Amino acid sequence: MSNVERQLEDIKEQIESEVPSDISISDVTYEGPKLVVYTRDPKTFAENGDLVRRLASKLRKRITVRPDPDVLSHPQEAEEKIMNVIPEEAGVTDLDFHVDTGEVVIEAAKPGMVIGRHGSTLREITQQVGWTPEVVRTPPIESSTVSNVRNFLKQEREERREILERVGRQIHRQEMSDDEWVRITTLGCCREVGRASFILSTPETRVLIDCGDKPGAEGEVPYLHVPEATPLNSLDAVVLTHAHLDHSALIPLLFKYGYDGPIYCTEPTRDLMGLLTLDYLDVAAKEGRTPPYESEMVREAIKHTIPLEYGDVTDIAPDIKLTFHNAGHILGSAVSHFHIGDGLYNVAFSGDIHYTDTRLFNGAVNEFPRVETLVMESTYGGRNDYQTDQADSEDKLIEVIKETAEDGGKVVIPAFAVGRSQEIMLVLEEAMRNGDIPEMPVHLDGMIWEATAIHTTYPEYLRDDLRDRIFHDDENPFLAEQFNHIDGGEEERQEVADGGPCVILSTSGMVTGGPIMSWLRHLGGDERNTMVFVGYQAQGTLGRRIQSGWDEIPMNERGRNGGGRGSTLKLKMDVETVDGFSGHADRNGLMNFVRTMNPRPEKVLCVHGDESSTRDLSSGLYHEFNMRTFAPKNLETFRFK
Amino acid sequence: MSNVERQLEDIKEQIESEVPSDISISDVTYEGPKLVVYTRDPKTFAENGDLVRRLASKLRKRITVRPDPDVLSHPQEAEEKIMNVIPEEAGVTDLDFHVDTGEVVIEAAKPGMVIGRHGSTLREITQQVGWTPEVVRTPPIESSTVSNVRNFLKQEREERREILERVGRQIHRQEMSDDEWVRITTLGCCREVGRASFILSTPETRVLIDCGDKPGAEGEVPYLHVPEATPLNSLDAVVLTHAHLDHSALIPLLFKYGYDGPIYCTEPTRDLMGLLTLDYLDVAAKEGRTPPYESEMVREAIKHTIPLEYGDVTDIAPDIKLTFHNAGHILGSAVSHFHIGDGLYNVAFSGDIHYTDTRLFNGAVNEFPRVETLVMESTYGGRNDYQTDQADSEDKLIEVIKETAEDGGKVVIPAFAVGRSQEIMLVLEEAMRNGDIPEMPVHLDGMIWEATAIHTTYPEYLRDDLRDRIFHDDENPFLAEQFNHIDGGEEERQEVADGGPCVILSTSGMVTGGPIMSWLRHLGGDERNTMVFVGYQAQGTLGRRIQSGWDEIPMNERGRNGGGRGSTLKLKMDVETVDGFSGHADRNGLMNFVRTMNPRPEKVLCVHGDESSTRDLSSGLYHEFNMRTFAPKNLETFRFK
Repeated sequence: MSNVERQLEDIKEQIESEVPSDISISDVTYEGPKLVVYTRDPKTFAENGDLVRRLASKLRKRITVRPDPDVLSHPQEAEEKIMNVIPEEAGVTDLDFHVDTGEVVIEAAKPGMVIGRHGSTLREITQQVGWTPEVVRTPPIESSTVSNVRNFLKQEREERREILERVGRQIHRQEMSDDEWVRITTLGCCREVGRASFILSTPETRVLIDCGDKPGAEGEVPYLHVPEATPLNSLDAVVLTHAHLDHSALIPLLFKYGYDGPIYCTEPTRDLMGLLTLDYLDVAAKEGRTPPYESEMVREAIKHTIPLEYGDVTDIAPDIKLTFHNAGHILGSAVSHFHIGDGLYNVAFSGDIHYTDTRLFNGAVNEFPRVETLVMESTYGGRNDYQTDQADSEDKLIEVIKETAEDGGKVVIPAFAVGRSQEIMLVLEEAMRNGDIPEMPVHLDGMIWEATAIHTTYPEYLRDDLRDRIFHDDENPFLAEQFNHIDGGEEERQEVADGGPCVILSTSGMVTGGPIMSWLRHLGGDERNTMVFVGYQAQGTLGRRIQSGWDEIPMNERGRNGGGRGSTLKLKMDVETVDGFSGHADRNGLMNFVRTMNPRPEKVLCVHGDESSTRDLSSGLYHEFNMRTFAPKNLETFRFK
Repeated sequence: MSNVERQLEDIKEQIESEVPSDISISDVTYEGPKLVVYTRDPKTFAENGDLVRRLASKLRKRITVRPDPDVLSHPQEAEEKIMNVIPEEAGVTDLDFHVDTGEVVIEAAKPGMVIGRHGSTLREITQQVGWTPEVVRTPPIESSTVSNVRNFLKQEREERREILERVGRQIHRQEMSDDEWVRITTLGCCREVGRASFILSTPETRVLIDCGDKPGAEGEVPYLHVPEATPLNSLDAVVLTHAHLDHSALIPLLFKYGYDGPIYCTEPTRDLMGLLTLDYLDVAAKEGRTPPYESEMVREAIKHTIPLEYGDVTDIAPDIKLTFHNAGHILGSAVSHFHIGDGLYNVAFSGDIHYTDTRLFNGAVNEFPRVETLVMESTYGGRNDYQTDQADSEDKLIEVIKETAEDGGKVVIPAFAVGRSQEIMLVLEEAMRNGDIPEMPVHLDGMIWEATAIHTTYPEYLRDDLRDRIFHDDENPFLAEQFNHIDGGEEERQEVADGGPCVILSTSGMVTGGPIMSWLRHLGGDERNTMVFVGYQAQGTLGRRIQSGWDEIPMNERGRNGGGRGSTLKLKMDVETVDGFSGHADRNGLMNFVRTMNPRPEKVLCVHGDESSTRDLSSGLYHEFNMRTFAPKNLETFRFK
């Protein structure tokens, strides 16, 4: 008997001694980090409301209870009963019965009503039919990404179960080493913005954190080929802090290189990663570059994803527990906390953070049970990187839009599809509702519409009051009628260009390609129009150049046949920068994140920023808080314990 | 045709265009780092005295010219002619003809007389017989190590040529990467003394520097199993700075783990490594431990050794040149200078150094064409680690010996077989010759005699005036008649213990085993006797304990059958420490090494010292020279470029 099997036998005995004698336990297995308990008496189990929580706390594991397939009622019969239990207002749109596991996935417009107070409705479902219900939200705005991901996972259920079982055995394997150390190796994004990637390692385990590309420097990927990272198939886990491409773009590449293990991230990060990496491949193809991997690899990544919620403490290796916390940066973005060994050491990776609340998100979490080392982003870590208050920024943006409209011009805003676009949408919706700017169309081009749909699918990840507005008061601001999805291509753009005042939100956020190029052509030559930058423009991007005064823009259009014609656009439109909308904390926010952090870490590695920003932040933190701080280079290894 | 073959074709053409038309070149190959040129006209080649040097400088390679085997004269005939050319006083003891390479190895008591002024005699030999002569010294004191190594290499000639050819192709392979970086990973001896081991890496190449054990902490080996080091068979080269076990003990283990490449070190380091590692296995067996490898692996290490002389600039990888320089620490010890890329970066590893001249060696070299980073030992780097001047130390030692002898006692000195023993021998020989102490026997126990024999085999590595004394004036101090080799075991020791005043030099130097344990038993209980420590005593060793006042010594004797009996020895003998004889620079010497270093490095990594010593030295260097200094931990990686 292998060690894992012995372990499961022990656990089964423990559970049997814990549950009432009228509940029989037929099997206990690992599925990824979770312990799955099969019972022939699911209804009796469900009657003992507190039992699962008691077992979980005793065994220090996440537990799912499922009915033994032998005792399942017929799906058709179960469906009828389930629909009787759930109130009609819940808006159930789909029921999916998994005979192999005894689970039924219920898709509903209002998942809360399926769950009931403290899960009472769910328990009632089990008591009635024996099946274990799982609830997902019906996207309020139709999202092809969400439905594609869900359909794909449905279709791959069998392989996915195998993966989860394998991962489960890996996580719960016996520890081999009696040595103790904790190290971080930097594979990218040190003294630069882009290609975020780190390895956290112990004698037992290696975890890769993020694997992004570098905007404006195609081909500069993380150092995945150095011995610290290879062979990739011996990595224990990959953790993705959020879906932006400078953190996620090369996650699918790992599967091409032989990685076959789990990707841990939040559910919205999984879906957004799918959206953004597929677009990344599209863009590469359109620009005539060979994409680093095929779309098949994106599917592999999604298939291997184990979604975690904020606050779930999850075993990802024999000696590492991972917990995600809200990072305030984009939907699903997570500060990733690693608890290593049995109280040996704790490391938090900030990922990208926003310290204060924004319209979309609560500010980043900086309270942890323990943390000795913080790896922190430094995008705006420079000594003078102070941003305008968002209220002032909003006033400025509204002013620019008002003036441009009064001149009969149009405002075009290059924005990341994910994050800043939705923040600006909320600003515009409110300003129009309050009459601060005249009602006018707001056109959403590129993937912004789709990204917005994903936001509305996961309101739990949005700021408290926004979530309440969307789901309790039924006044979803993203559904306001000003918002128009540009889905008619060049023709529609031409119409918009020929029409009256309006606002256009378009990707890419750094003007490196995508429909924004088309808008430049349509609107760039007219001095009545205004381009407004609302996000960070990396070195080497066209956005950065326009921002710093370039007005002769080379326009290379590539036809479908790959041929290109070059021309130059004389930029006459106004160029404005409104800098308070960044998804990143500014210098102040970063310092405050550490100042109010509880507990305060002993060491901080300042990464994810230009060389001067990381050095400035490192020295600022050292002088203000007298902690050990570093501005690492790529390819260095730090040992903490 | 492979890239290396194309390269050799090109080189052959270049050589052909360079040599006079009456010299035909039949083949050009790599043997390790050397380029070997075969000619059908060795005699004509030898007549053009300057030709080899001109070719070497043009091709920037080390060049050996050999006769095409087809044109060789018969060995018997050649032998006669060779003996006619070499003056009789040269004392030739062996001629060994290698028909496959056209080389003849001449072993002689006075190699200088075989070589002749600027190599004139060697050239005459080639002109007369066509064979390429190589000269080695007949050990003036018979050394079983030297003769074993030479015989073994003779016997393994064929496999060795294959190894050298393979290594040659590896070294001269085409560079693959257009990335540029230089890194050092610490695998041991950081914030500790012992288990020295580093990896120097570039995108192209990985070199392991040293691989030692940790005295007083069996089992604590370098971190060879971390990804930075594995797989060992993909390492390009191993460089050994000197033969002490804390640098060399686990070199043979590399071959057990699959390494199959070259070991670069000086010739005396190779022989001493053979001596010390075989003894290391013996000691482990005697103490009932399982040795980490079999003696077969020591032979593998010796077979894979490519000896280099001080000052030879040697290609060891497509992008790395290695040069050894005298380190002043022990016989053959080398400061190892790595020139990386084409002027990209330079790193010097001090190994263990002695800054000032000692009786045995010139002080460590600290002049280099370029050097940006220095990795420096810190054994005595602590802020108060100042040692007595050697002159004062010698006075003190002489005083102790005189007083002990006057009391009718004996002096026992635990000493490393290699280095300090010979230094002390020189002091004693001079003191007796000058009448500063009465003539008395000096008994050499353990491997000291053998180690001394190896010293006399390689006088080129000794201090100038000592070398001259040995080989020009025929007054080899090591042959003085006071010196007695204890080769009669316990019986002889008992006789010595029962006899009159004398000095005993015995291993191990830190009283961790070996014959010194027997001397403790024989002499420890008599208060007329004195134990004198002349070298560093590491934490955890019995030497350190005795030095700090322990006088109840547990004596565990293990019989041949593995059974043990324990007893306690009440130590009554005097214990003295005379600290000026260390082979290590003291705080002053380390600071001066850097102060006078030319050029001065930008960065210094302080390693090979207790935590406080490395920190003290790091901070001292920073404050005095305003350079970037570090006291790394094990398992860290620093990137320099």
